[in-house]
Amino acid sequence: MIKAALSVLLVLVAMSSTSGKYIPKSGKRITQTLARGWGDQLIWAQTYEEALYWARSRNKPLMVLFHLEDCPHSQELKKGFSEDNMIQRMLDEDFIVLNLMYETTDKHLSPDGQYVPRIIFVDPTMTVRADIVGRYSNRMYAYEPADIKLLKSNMEKAKKLLKSEL
Amino acid sequence: MIKAALSVLLVLVAMSSTSGKYIPKSGKRITQTLARGWGDQLIWAQTYEEALYWARSRNKPLMVLFHLEDCPHSQELKKGFSEDNMIQRMLDEDFIVLNLMYETTDKHLSPDGQYVPRIIFVDPTMTVRADIVGRYSNRMYAYEPADIKLLKSNMEKAKKLLKSEL
Repeated sequence: MIKAALSVLLVLVAMSSTSGKYIPKSGKRITQTLARGWGDQLIWAQTYEEALYWARSRNKPLMVLFHLEDCPHSQELKKGFSEDNMIQRMLDEDFIVLNLMYETTDKHLSPDGQYVPRIIFVDPTMTVRADIVGRYSNRMYAYEPADIKLLKSNMEKAKKLLKSEL
Repeated sequence: MIKAALSVLLVLVAMSSTSGKYIPKSGKRITQTLARGWGDQLIWAQTYEEALYWARSRNKPLMVLFHLEDCPHSQELKKGFSEDNMIQRMLDEDFIVLNLMYETTDKHLSPDGQYVPRIIFVDPTMTVRADIVGRYSNRMYAYEPADIKLLKSNMEKAKKLLKSEL
């Protein structure tokens, strides 16, 4: 009986960690308007320059997410991405985040071309992590909704900073 | 008596056009979070790249405004700037607007150095209007609250596009 109750409890705990809206430990924030649906509790940087500044000063990796509102692939990825509490928590606690609908002039952010959705990691040393790639050889930084697990493991890679002591 | 009433009416009209909050002709908008107090009814671009795209596609000049939240000169200018209905209306109807707290990598936006507050105009042909300057020879793109009139006349200059037919 206790065992059964424990199992139920475990299932509930497991469910609560993967479903429901992500809420930061410090409490719910007002919806962040630069989120555009990719995580309305995350503090999004406005520009690439600002994001780089934050990454460097807080010694956290940066995730740059290129997307378009009228691209169905972006919209599909957005759904899985924004509803995954583990991704949202990792991004909130360990990353600087930036989502962009317009390309920057920095060519390092488009190692194999400009397309959406595209996710590029940047180390706090300001080095673009062109080595952290997805599943598709023709669009190396693209992710589909089925690639969320790969995205998480890539986020773990990005967290291993190139120079851990600064 | 009628004359007196007319005078009162004229005074009221004059007051309403220079004081009170600016409201777009199309109706009040929700507060734009990228405004940061510089005009919460204006549609602010997120990044320089986005602003350039809008300027080019809508054939409107761009105003780029560099400022800092903890700079008293920025804060003073912001007050006069945001409360001036004529500036707000011109910006809303005839300009693309961008305010930034972090410098871009584009050196054309800092013709005589990086300082705040600094206002740079860009023509829809993507040409930085380094010729449109303020009153101070050591900081050519700086404006003080007393320079609001000069700023307006500079906005008029910026509206005269370099190439009016595209």
